[in-house]
Amino acid sequence: MGVRVPLGTPKFINIKKDDFMQEKFMQEALKEAKKAYEKMEVPVGCVIVKDNKIIARAHNLKETKFDTTKHAEILAIQKASKKLKSWRLLNCEMYITLEPCSMCAGAIINSRIKKVYIGALDEKTGAAGSVLNLFEDYCFNHKVEIEKNVLKNECEEILKNFFKELRVIKSKK
Amino acid sequence: MGVRVPLGTPKFINIKKDDFMQEKFMQEALKEAKKAYEKMEVPVGCVIVKDNKIIARAHNLKETKFDTTKHAEILAIQKASKKLKSWRLLNCEMYITLEPCSMCAGAIINSRIKKVYIGALDEKTGAAGSVLNLFEDYCFNHKVEIEKNVLKNECEEILKNFFKELRVIKSKK
Repeated sequence: MGVRVPLGTPKFINIKKDDFMQEKFMQEALKEAKKAYEKMEVPVGCVIVKDNKIIARAHNLKETKFDTTKHAEILAIQKASKKLKSWRLLNCEMYITLEPCSMCAGAIINSRIKKVYIGALDEKTGAAGSVLNLFEDYCFNHKVEIEKNVLKNECEEILKNFFKELRVIKSKK
Repeated sequence: MGVRVPLGTPKFINIKKDDFMQEKFMQEALKEAKKAYEKMEVPVGCVIVKDNKIIARAHNLKETKFDTTKHAEILAIQKASKKLKSWRLLNCEMYITLEPCSMCAGAIINSRIKKVYIGALDEKTGAAGSVLNLFEDYCFNHKVEIEKNVLKNECEEILKNFFKELRVIKSKK
């Protein structure tokens, strides 16, 4: 996208640079989602970024670990907390390929993450606007900024492919 | 309470027996809360019960482990999942000394826990009716039953004592 940025319009260049960084980090979250897919887990991936560097990355491991708390976001928050030696993930941003459920949105608020970038939306359990909006509709002691639709198509596609494959496998059983 | 049950009123006896069991398990959750207090953690404790037996117990370890996901409920769900070798905690009941936050209420729904017994309420972050009601106000694919005010006074008292002591410690610094 940087190629098409006209010279001499600094504001426009900044916006495009931000877009580029957002997409770069969501691509990393997508790499994690692919790792989940390879394990036949629902392909959701996540990275946590601080000072423009990835400090934690994780993917959904719910079935592998037979534990519903092993969502990508929870695992990434645990890794980032370990790295920063603090439960407060101040000035950290999270990139997630799928809208978080209530458990994960709650963990994001509790951990004081500054901003969340979301790829695909989740109409069944999404807690960032789809079923409810934990980030914006309630007065908790921390407010998380959200930005949706980052690499939306790619994030939706990997989920669609996964569930399509799962249906084929189940129909053969 | 069992002592005061009149004989010859079977229905009444059953109700009192249920009360007795609820209080017995909440006492166990309170024991966990006391362990948290001894570590100067916000005293919240939790047990998970299946077939009238405790299969997991945990207390808040957020500060000790510098990790906001280390709430009593999350830790207990992880232990129960390990024990049952399944993320589905079917026919399990949870006793918590304090109303769960959104993260924990979300985890309870995700883990398919049948019923939650709550001691004290949490006006600031409670997601079982105080700030919002994740258990009753949304159409998720699993419905959790709730019962509040089990040993409410005892559960409130330990929290009040903790925060009182914390204020004294902070005022001396």
